[in-house]
Amino acid sequence: MISIEEQVRRQAQAAQAAARKVASLSAPQKNAALEAMARALKRRCQEILAANAEDVQSARASGLSSALIDRLTLSEGRVADMVEGLRAVARLPDPVGEVVRAWRVPSGLEVGRVRVPLGVVGIIYEARPNVTADAAALCLKAGNAVILRGGSEAINSNKAIVEALVQGAEETDLPPGAIQLIESTDRQAVAAMMKQRGLIDVLIPRGGAGLIKNVVENSTIPVIETGVGNCHVYVDQDADLDMAERIAINAKCQRPGVCNAMETLLVHREVAEKLLPALAPQLLERGVQIRGCPRTLALVPEAQAAEEADWREEYLDLVLAVKVVDSLDEALDHIARYGTKHSEAIVTRDYSAARRFLREVDAAAVYVNASTRFTDGGQFGLGAEIGISTQKLHARGPMGLEELTTTKFIVYGEGQVR
Amino acid sequence: MISIEEQVRRQAQAAQAAARKVASLSAPQKNAALEAMARALKRRCQEILAANAEDVQSARASGLSSALIDRLTLSEGRVADMVEGLRAVARLPDPVGEVVRAWRVPSGLEVGRVRVPLGVVGIIYEARPNVTADAAALCLKAGNAVILRGGSEAINSNKAIVEALVQGAEETDLPPGAIQLIESTDRQAVAAMMKQRGLIDVLIPRGGAGLIKNVVENSTIPVIETGVGNCHVYVDQDADLDMAERIAINAKCQRPGVCNAMETLLVHREVAEKLLPALAPQLLERGVQIRGCPRTLALVPEAQAAEEADWREEYLDLVLAVKVVDSLDEALDHIARYGTKHSEAIVTRDYSAARRFLREVDAAAVYVNASTRFTDGGQFGLGAEIGISTQKLHARGPMGLEELTTTKFIVYGEGQVR
Repeated sequence: MISIEEQVRRQAQAAQAAARKVASLSAPQKNAALEAMARALKRRCQEILAANAEDVQSARASGLSSALIDRLTLSEGRVADMVEGLRAVARLPDPVGEVVRAWRVPSGLEVGRVRVPLGVVGIIYEARPNVTADAAALCLKAGNAVILRGGSEAINSNKAIVEALVQGAEETDLPPGAIQLIESTDRQAVAAMMKQRGLIDVLIPRGGAGLIKNVVENSTIPVIETGVGNCHVYVDQDADLDMAERIAINAKCQRPGVCNAMETLLVHREVAEKLLPALAPQLLERGVQIRGCPRTLALVPEAQAAEEADWREEYLDLVLAVKVVDSLDEALDHIARYGTKHSEAIVTRDYSAARRFLREVDAAAVYVNASTRFTDGGQFGLGAEIGISTQKLHARGPMGLEELTTTKFIVYGEGQVR
Repeated sequence: MISIEEQVRRQAQAAQAAARKVASLSAPQKNAALEAMARALKRRCQEILAANAEDVQSARASGLSSALIDRLTLSEGRVADMVEGLRAVARLPDPVGEVVRAWRVPSGLEVGRVRVPLGVVGIIYEARPNVTADAAALCLKAGNAVILRGGSEAINSNKAIVEALVQGAEETDLPPGAIQLIESTDRQAVAAMMKQRGLIDVLIPRGGAGLIKNVVENSTIPVIETGVGNCHVYVDQDADLDMAERIAINAKCQRPGVCNAMETLLVHREVAEKLLPALAPQLLERGVQIRGCPRTLALVPEAQAAEEADWREEYLDLVLAVKVVDSLDEALDHIARYGTKHSEAIVTRDYSAARRFLREVDAAAVYVNASTRFTDGGQFGLGAEIGISTQKLHARGPMGLEELTTTKFIVYGEGQVR
């Protein structure tokens, strides 16, 4: 029996060999593979649902939260969404081969930058099995081989999905090894992936803060960090307060469990007395628990006292920290200190406050007069999305196909030497 | 006394505080700072040379190689080059604030990507003290704060240079802490830098393979890997052999100690008999030691037998590995196996061989009919250069000012919610 580490290394080698071939597939070849994968997924829907039922049963037995079980559970409708997801990726334009820019230099060389695949992309993710199909499709369309490592709670679902995808791909020009699942649910498998420097080109962790921290701190492979969002909405002294209410309610309540939901509301003291007593009942009736600074507590009797930890917390739940601030400067300082550089919004009618907020807030997405919930590849018009990067290198904010590629310089000469 | 780790942490905190201010300086403010730094460097030339003389003396005493001592040694001319380097960076266009792209999405939001500084950039480098001024200038022009950590052999020179730069900067709007040197030459200082996640945004190691490996494997901060180049020139069966000779001689001999110099020459068997006996004497008379495959040895009696390790070696010296190959495919496989994805060249008159080489070689820069020595920010027309990235994320190939920035999404709304 071979070790987990050796097994992962072999899979990474197979992926690297496949990547060279995937990189030179044409757009029609890749799209045909995606269509075959979509058909196979549809055809094997019942097997996938049966495998998923096993996962759901184990999850219930081990007492997973109902929110997690909901994310884990597939249905015919969700499988149909995965099928449609594959076809949607097929319809996106091929990013590979685009000449980003080309120019001539004084030596007479013609220099160009051309978009090329990254190579082998490793995705490490948690409960939602639909990530398996989505991530495979995006990596493939960008000309990469992909190694998937899902959570142990979804292992049967992921196996069934990858089996279907591979079966579909076999009918096409996609080389074997282009889509692989790490089947071991042992934590050692993740540790082994993080050591495949030279074979895996980039790791993208998708999931909770613990998973991301583990990968960021231990990987020797470049990582694209995703997702942790301690997002703020700041209501300026010169805000349209009706708009502020709508945005705050939407940013907190429309889908509290996602990274672009608001976690802290900052309110300028000049409008706090008017805004908070009007807004709080609307939040409370939606089940939101409010944790406020002393000035908030004076205006919202139902609120609990916020502690220092509340300003740092990504609740991902119907909980909201609220702080009254003296100025735009205090809001900017609070965001710089506690924010995770994900999505930050100001509500204001003041031109220069809007300009300062846009310029000075250091985050992947900075909004004026809109909900932070728009930070999303689809909403930004990038097509599908592989995740939201909260780091500054390579990709920042929602990542589409382009972020799954790199460039290389190509240089045409006629015998030039230095 | 505070620990090295605590000292580094305090410097990183000061850099982060400075970075917020540097980010909002205008181009004229930054250029004025660069000009003041240039003047201070010029004014303190004699102090810098005296400090450098100490370093050179210690280096001689500890038996450093003459090549390293040459890289370490400053002269009035080299200081003048540093001064001119600062002014050249001042003349480059400011990358910060460029709207890379902006568009409107169906929700009515106007979404744009704007170029912004990275924040705090850490540079870890070795012998050459001129890197100190160059790197500081580039980081500053791109709106970043910079923390420099040079080699212990150049510590006095680096202290004197940074003292001059800081003195110049003090007369301007540049905030204190924007340019800092880690003065400890203890290895712990590098280890401490690599742990300043959340304070330092990116680390760029510049130097030998050992330094780069250490940073890549141990940093919890995103790293831009630079420099190791095992570069190949492949002479195709349909090459202009005069051109092949010129390119091979230039790529090997013009400056053998740099990362874009050729380390292995691959020759198609159809032209080996004609090329190698003509080329070898020209290489030998320039002092090049040739290590060849068996077919090379038959054609070049002066060559030594190459071992497996020779195909992997970055000599950075007047040594060349030579291999005769049967086909373009064998050349491509050899490069995929042994190359470091830096710079690779084909010499050919064949249209489809050129196209295949450009498409299939996975490297930062791929050439047809030109010397690999052109991989350089200046030669590619990017202005100055902070290093040559051999990784695929964020930056690939020569890195100019743009690679010292990131982007953020800015979103203009009128109350939109989801």
